[in-house]
Amino acid sequence: MNHRTITAELLTIGDEILYGQITDTNAQWMSIELGLAGIKVVRKTSVGDVEGEILTALAEAEQRVDIVLITGGLGPTNDDLTKPCLAKYFGCGLKMNEEALAEVTAFFASRGRELTAVNRQQAALPECCEKITNKMGTAPGMWFHRNGKVFVSMPGVPHEMKRMMTDLVIPKLKQTFSTPVIVHKVIRTVGIGESFLAEKIAAWENALPPHIKLAYLPSLGEVKLRLTAIGDTEAELKAETDALSDQLQTIAGSFIYGHGEEPLEVMVGKLLREAKLTLSIAESCTGGYLSHLITSVPGCSDYYLGTMIPYSYDIKMRQLGVRPEVLEKYGAVSEPTIIEMANIVRAKFNTHIGVATSGIAGPGGATPEKPVGTVWIAFSDKDKTVTRKLQLSPDREINIKMASVAVLNLIRQNVGKSVVRTQ
Amino acid sequence: MNHRTITAELLTIGDEILYGQITDTNAQWMSIELGLAGIKVVRKTSVGDVEGEILTALAEAEQRVDIVLITGGLGPTNDDLTKPCLAKYFGCGLKMNEEALAEVTAFFASRGRELTAVNRQQAALPECCEKITNKMGTAPGMWFHRNGKVFVSMPGVPHEMKRMMTDLVIPKLKQTFSTPVIVHKVIRTVGIGESFLAEKIAAWENALPPHIKLAYLPSLGEVKLRLTAIGDTEAELKAETDALSDQLQTIAGSFIYGHGEEPLEVMVGKLLREAKLTLSIAESCTGGYLSHLITSVPGCSDYYLGTMIPYSYDIKMRQLGVRPEVLEKYGAVSEPTIIEMANIVRAKFNTHIGVATSGIAGPGGATPEKPVGTVWIAFSDKDKTVTRKLQLSPDREINIKMASVAVLNLIRQNVGKSVVRTQ
Repeated sequence: MNHRTITAELLTIGDEILYGQITDTNAQWMSIELGLAGIKVVRKTSVGDVEGEILTALAEAEQRVDIVLITGGLGPTNDDLTKPCLAKYFGCGLKMNEEALAEVTAFFASRGRELTAVNRQQAALPECCEKITNKMGTAPGMWFHRNGKVFVSMPGVPHEMKRMMTDLVIPKLKQTFSTPVIVHKVIRTVGIGESFLAEKIAAWENALPPHIKLAYLPSLGEVKLRLTAIGDTEAELKAETDALSDQLQTIAGSFIYGHGEEPLEVMVGKLLREAKLTLSIAESCTGGYLSHLITSVPGCSDYYLGTMIPYSYDIKMRQLGVRPEVLEKYGAVSEPTIIEMANIVRAKFNTHIGVATSGIAGPGGATPEKPVGTVWIAFSDKDKTVTRKLQLSPDREINIKMASVAVLNLIRQNVGKSVVRTQ
Repeated sequence: MNHRTITAELLTIGDEILYGQITDTNAQWMSIELGLAGIKVVRKTSVGDVEGEILTALAEAEQRVDIVLITGGLGPTNDDLTKPCLAKYFGCGLKMNEEALAEVTAFFASRGRELTAVNRQQAALPECCEKITNKMGTAPGMWFHRNGKVFVSMPGVPHEMKRMMTDLVIPKLKQTFSTPVIVHKVIRTVGIGESFLAEKIAAWENALPPHIKLAYLPSLGEVKLRLTAIGDTEAELKAETDALSDQLQTIAGSFIYGHGEEPLEVMVGKLLREAKLTLSIAESCTGGYLSHLITSVPGCSDYYLGTMIPYSYDIKMRQLGVRPEVLEKYGAVSEPTIIEMANIVRAKFNTHIGVATSGIAGPGGATPEKPVGTVWIAFSDKDKTVTRKLQLSPDREINIKMASVAVLNLIRQNVGKSVVRTQ
């Protein structure tokens, strides 16, 4: 490779990080995105809302790296010092940026709110910076370029920072610096744990060439595999990773639901839309989270019609219509009840498919036969009803999320059996 | 105050943090524990598994702070460099520590495993350190004391580090340094943006004494305020922050829903339980997220009975029972429809309270009169129906989450009007 490594430091400003009041999720996200862009993070630093500390950290970072990415300290309040510190560090004054002012004004107008004097001040920027538009909030970002080094200041609010990084900062960094070619390929699996997957694909993994690395990225109910190839030619790297991905398909195909950035709920939505099938949900222990996953996808109203959450026994019987004798004989967390729930919601809501969940999310409600983490799920269509019993964890949040993912997987398996998706 | 501030830096060693492969949850936990012990974290630093970077970071930290707390890089593999780097930095050799060897041997024996040569090496420590026992694992911690400064090295595995900190490191730091008392008070607000809140409480904020600091901690739909008081006597500081919090109650009381760690959905749940009121939900644009917030609270079945998510027009009419003429005349996103939704779900589900959401979450579905982010919410009980129109953001996820928080706030305002909660 002909490229020198381009290095970055992440500098977080704010007492709330130092005092442990918030978790710094930004730094991890930024590390990953920069890595994907061929930029190597070599240091992370957090300092408090103290001018001297901020100025020292800026000077130290400038010595060490090519790119300094700063988050936090851009709020409209007095404890936010990033902007005055940057003005001081680069030796230029703050001046009202008319474009930024127009953007902030429009942002407030779009929400039917008036611009306060405090918010107006957010549009005052150091004269020596380029403004970076904040599409999701009121504090503009700032881009400084001096002696071949770049400093970028962004808000600490995660969704504002992420949008700014993705749309503007990373493309501009790639233009500014000569980064190596990096090709990533993400293979998404569901329904198999990390260690079982690792065993299954060990021979394939051991045969990877040295310029291609594999990472396991587990989340609740899913494991993403990421191949990272570094070289000079994009087409070559892409061909290599595609061939490796094809090999993986023959080894672990039934667990692979997709490639790239598309999450399971989006893929399930596409399956339903393409098959022209409609979905309704009766969820009990997942309490709305399964519906939330389905409805987090824009345009889901093409295939998703509605949900009943019959949390209480009474609502299960009177509103959904589960027969009292079934509930009494087998209990809410049972195969006969989950079958009724899926079939009834499908019939009532007049959809092609009905799915259902019922379980002990915890921490209360367990019995010796049904410990916390016992969850029944079901899929129903005109031809069949498929059930599954899950034994999950002692943790309520994990159980809610894993059970919801398991239902998405159940829909995938029973709608899209013959469909193998690549992108 | 008679104490000078005792300062600490947290130094994390390991490529996996820099590359974003794992979330650094240790640093947040350590910050909180040190804060409670009266030790002020003034910087957090992460470096990779590179000798030069580690030695530089140690030297920089020694200049800045009294206490350097190091985590990570203590594993048995070759890429773990913390121990040789510390030996080099303090200029002493590695030597087998017999007590550590006995502890590691016993640890392995207790799990029925044999000590390998690699694990044996974990008991070799720099001669100039004090060993710190690791009750939860095999890598001992190390304590260095030079020129009044303390360096502590601990494993990066969270449960090993936490046990070591709680049992041994924090007590020993308190013995070594004369630490002040620090008291935090968190005041939680909802329904007012950060800049509006800042304007409202500006006079109060400007009158804070110098030993008490204020921080704004915003999240979607909420802003937490944190007072941090430093002094000598816990009772005195507590009285001061309580008095300040009481003043704030008179200035911004209607936006304050609680104090401390309890989130809004837990507080709303307590209100409902104490008032012996039951809740049902008809949510459309929030698609299950509101129900998910309510059901994320253990024991919510005491007051929450169920939800209908009538996502399609047809389900709104046939299943929930909104009158077709209302839907046709005013549309799904309208005050007449949201009133029907809240009233009907309350009646059908036979609860004291019904709440409802209907809006344009986006990106599709907007009209000139109803842009993306237009959301109607309603609260209904036997005495009244309260509605509110929200104008939120262009972002689907933000709209779903902010609308859900707004409904929780609507419940709080209409159930708990006369209840002022402190803890």
